[in-house]
Amino acid sequence: MEAPLTSSDRSAASEPEIGVDAFRHAMRELAGGVAVVTVGRDADITGFTATSVVSLCASPPRIFICVSRSSASWAALQKHPCFGINLLRQEDRAVADRFAGRDGLEGAERYRGAAWSPLRTGAPLLDTALAALDCEVEESLARYDHAIVIGRIIAMRVRAGGPPLVYWQGDYHPFEQIVGARKAP
Amino acid sequence: MEAPLTSSDRSAASEPEIGVDAFRHAMRELAGGVAVVTVGRDADITGFTATSVVSLCASPPRIFICVSRSSASWAALQKHPCFGINLLRQEDRAVADRFAGRDGLEGAERYRGAAWSPLRTGAPLLDTALAALDCEVEESLARYDHAIVIGRIIAMRVRAGGPPLVYWQGDYHPFEQIVGARKAP
Repeated sequence: MEAPLTSSDRSAASEPEIGVDAFRHAMRELAGGVAVVTVGRDADITGFTATSVVSLCASPPRIFICVSRSSASWAALQKHPCFGINLLRQEDRAVADRFAGRDGLEGAERYRGAAWSPLRTGAPLLDTALAALDCEVEESLARYDHAIVIGRIIAMRVRAGGPPLVYWQGDYHPFEQIVGARKAP
Repeated sequence: MEAPLTSSDRSAASEPEIGVDAFRHAMRELAGGVAVVTVGRDADITGFTATSVVSLCASPPRIFICVSRSSASWAALQKHPCFGINLLRQEDRAVADRFAGRDGLEGAERYRGAAWSPLRTGAPLLDTALAALDCEVEESLARYDHAIVIGRIIAMRVRAGGPPLVYWQGDYHPFEQIVGARKAP
């Protein structure tokens, strides 16, 4: 018997929920740093743009990402359980667009036009990333149509000097830090 | 017998990991939208500032947050399994500071100086939030010193009009959208 694909039976639903359209409307307001996640090897190399990278624990260092289980990246992760996380600077917007599929390219084609270097697992890491993390999959938690994938970080490269690229209201935006704009409480 | 507190035994660790300090250094580059999560009731009302809000699934609408299991908020969530997620605009920086503990206030004291209104669960929701989501806990996944808490959204309020408050390099920053700054690929 297969494991259940959803967790909706794990709690007694006591209240009706909001609708899908209302939820999508609200989520447009959720800002997030933009990362490109790189997965696969050789013929099945691919990757995707993510705004769901979260630091889970500092000791031991653990990070997680959220992956659509209908994606080529999820299929590749099953074959090769490691991945790269590349935190993008605002100048890397073209890379974000490409890995989000905005110009229609798939798989290895998405890697064109940018410089990539692996560290230990072989996952391609973007040379210009603010931080590039080389991860092994520790655990995957399938919930609904996505999976929460927890990674151990076995190598990394940091090239601070932002500012970062930020997703908000359906698009990727450059970020301008306004020093001294803090309001009095 | 208690459930295991970590998942470190779930995969064969094939490579040595990076160190804690190196991980913290890299995570300074991870930008994130800033939210205040509200939990508890009456005497044990509290909450915290989070940069780990993730949309898990649109249909059905599910969102998750990451909560430290040594926090007062985690204790309150055990007693009252619902919470509010308030996505902050840049003018709400004082609220972010307060719920991050930067002025030393705890529990109900953190709610002073801002306007809050509940919807259905009773969790306080910030009147000025870009989006305020009223959630029931569906499932909590304990991993290391944190828990991934998945919520069903049963009510919400959206007041678009940003820009959002964004966390990056250890601080909360206003965000300036620079229209037309997109670089050619």
